[in-house]
Amino acid sequence: MALIVQKYGGTSVGTLERIQAVADRVIRTQQAGHQVVVVVSAMSGETNRLLGMANELDENASEREKDVLVSTGEQVTIALLSIALQQKGCNAVSMTGDQVRMHTDDAHGKARITDIDDKNLRHELDQGKVVVVAGFQGRSPDNHITTLGRGGSDTTAVAIAAAVKADECQIYTDVDGVYTTDPRVEPKARRLKSITFEEMLEMASLGAKVLQIRAVEFAGKYNVPLRVLSSFDEGEGTLISYEEQKMESPVISGIAFNRDEASLTILGVPDKPSVAASILAPIGDANIDVDMIIQNSMGDGTADFTFTVHRNDYKRAKLLLQETAQKLEAREVQGREDLAKISIVGVGMMNHPGVAKTMFETFGDEGINMQLISTSEIKVSVVVDEKYLELGVRALHSAFGLEQS
Amino acid sequence: MALIVQKYGGTSVGTLERIQAVADRVIRTQQAGHQVVVVVSAMSGETNRLLGMANELDENASEREKDVLVSTGEQVTIALLSIALQQKGCNAVSMTGDQVRMHTDDAHGKARITDIDDKNLRHELDQGKVVVVAGFQGRSPDNHITTLGRGGSDTTAVAIAAAVKADECQIYTDVDGVYTTDPRVEPKARRLKSITFEEMLEMASLGAKVLQIRAVEFAGKYNVPLRVLSSFDEGEGTLISYEEQKMESPVISGIAFNRDEASLTILGVPDKPSVAASILAPIGDANIDVDMIIQNSMGDGTADFTFTVHRNDYKRAKLLLQETAQKLEAREVQGREDLAKISIVGVGMMNHPGVAKTMFETFGDEGINMQLISTSEIKVSVVVDEKYLELGVRALHSAFGLEQS
Repeated sequence: MALIVQKYGGTSVGTLERIQAVADRVIRTQQAGHQVVVVVSAMSGETNRLLGMANELDENASEREKDVLVSTGEQVTIALLSIALQQKGCNAVSMTGDQVRMHTDDAHGKARITDIDDKNLRHELDQGKVVVVAGFQGRSPDNHITTLGRGGSDTTAVAIAAAVKADECQIYTDVDGVYTTDPRVEPKARRLKSITFEEMLEMASLGAKVLQIRAVEFAGKYNVPLRVLSSFDEGEGTLISYEEQKMESPVISGIAFNRDEASLTILGVPDKPSVAASILAPIGDANIDVDMIIQNSMGDGTADFTFTVHRNDYKRAKLLLQETAQKLEAREVQGREDLAKISIVGVGMMNHPGVAKTMFETFGDEGINMQLISTSEIKVSVVVDEKYLELGVRALHSAFGLEQS
Repeated sequence: MALIVQKYGGTSVGTLERIQAVADRVIRTQQAGHQVVVVVSAMSGETNRLLGMANELDENASEREKDVLVSTGEQVTIALLSIALQQKGCNAVSMTGDQVRMHTDDAHGKARITDIDDKNLRHELDQGKVVVVAGFQGRSPDNHITTLGRGGSDTTAVAIAAAVKADECQIYTDVDGVYTTDPRVEPKARRLKSITFEEMLEMASLGAKVLQIRAVEFAGKYNVPLRVLSSFDEGEGTLISYEEQKMESPVISGIAFNRDEASLTILGVPDKPSVAASILAPIGDANIDVDMIIQNSMGDGTADFTFTVHRNDYKRAKLLLQETAQKLEAREVQGREDLAKISIVGVGMMNHPGVAKTMFETFGDEGINMQLISTSEIKVSVVVDEKYLELGVRALHSAFGLEQS
């Protein structure tokens, strides 16, 4: 008997019929002799419907109250799935984030899980029940309702899998696995049978959109085998684990991209070591994630400093940067919102120098101008004008031969 | 400075525009120098939408999971109203049933409040905040989500008013007060300026539908002055209190009615004292409320026993009664679902014998057959065929001169 955590996203529970199909799949898993914890998202469209009402009242609605609002979406799903399971004769019980004692910090809208007290969960499992848990939500130290941010249900599932030491955490979604790139951009994209945590981290963070980055981090940290599967088809999906790199591994595993990039540049700041901290501290304090960072010394005692943020954070970040610019007596603040990031990812590239060169040559051949470049051991990222995104992805997919198994 | 608890029902918060209007009214109350706690229902239609989904999955869905489901309705409203208040510059904070520590028993779907720990509430009030509380919901001793049943938000409001010793509990609804009867049935119905708790109890329990009976019980028990007002118009509404009966009080204050009556009769049970308990115990155990009870001795050692229940409980009650009939070797179980109850209510009738006679004469003149009769000190109730309801109410309204102030 294994203990399986299954997570079903918004599309998988988007209608009552789909909820019944999820119930069938859960029951099949239980009947195969396993204990099952199910983590669910809000029915697709529900979170947007709720946030739409909040925005209509106030475009700057408080994050605390938005958490109170949107957390109802998952609560609806846990009740409906439990009812569907019970109707099919399965002993199921629902648990909200606070009932499962999902403790988080107090960063409303993007809270981090600090601890799970699995006592309540185990109590229900020990009674032979399928436990249906609301993803995405928790409670802060002061007992305020928090949410983990969009896609946080994946993180909930992995965190629960880690807490109860599950044998596998299965993420059911509307795609049947992790692909070499987004098939909507490159129809020749191919499903990967397996991928390492490190590769998946780079893929997820860069916009593969199959799994939340924090979910993969959690899974890697606690060594929870993670599997991405389709909730609509049968199939083994893609397994994400610490599996040894196989000899026949390709140089790169996939091409990730992100449409929603924005860059900010502050020109003519004092060229001294503390300046990066002065610029980035207010951004971090405002809970804005910074991705690429480039500092460029001008040789005249000043420097230009560029970083990228998610497009949703662009306006807030720009205001903060303008305040900083005044304090530092900088020359100017510039920014661009129409950017995209394309990355090649693969643990194989560690043993194959020159992949960056192939990437740059490919872009050069296609006439794609590179705005920013950033490299790590297993990925190379390039920021380009958003209009070049599809062209760039397809050209790289072909250049690295990803369409072949 | 007074402490006011305001409660807004589903219609009053049925759209974002109405939520903004509620925010305006709350702010006016605060600007008049008062502390305000606001209790809200789900947006109108939302509870039915949610229950509709549950019923589609399973007509006998578990009460526990239905509570998890429908309690989201009020949670949505508290968030939206708090956002609307904050957008208008008011320092507001939302609280769910568990955050306000609304303790109930574990009768899912019709839980009773056992205790409110007002510490969290007071903490927010002391900081000058308007506190927006989710009505209708609480937590059982085992930390399950419970609901107080339909209309339970009134009870929440009064219970909170009692717990924080509020100066007045204002129930805002879509009518501008308590009427002598339902104006949809008798257009000559007139708004009452005041009414006693006892009268209101009889009016509410018998279907006046303005206030939940438990809310009035609570208010009477803790002597919380209760005011029913319209959330759409200005006006003083109807005050419900222990006010001394005035000399000019009419004999009866109003005519209440209930369309959804059903009666059940068990024929030929042993005519002994314990039989009523044998019959009603399973009904009570199933949490079905019994209203009128009549036992009729046949003189041959057997008796006929009749009681009324809400029409929604009719089928369940009938099944239970059939089981009891087998055990007691009773002759037969009969039932009727197409009944209505009409009641005249008034503390004035205590000093005016003969009001029942006027009622029966009126029904006789109109050819309305009375199925069951029940009397108390301040009311007389008659069960009739549902088709006679409107006719009966109008005839009584006229016979007792209620159209005159």
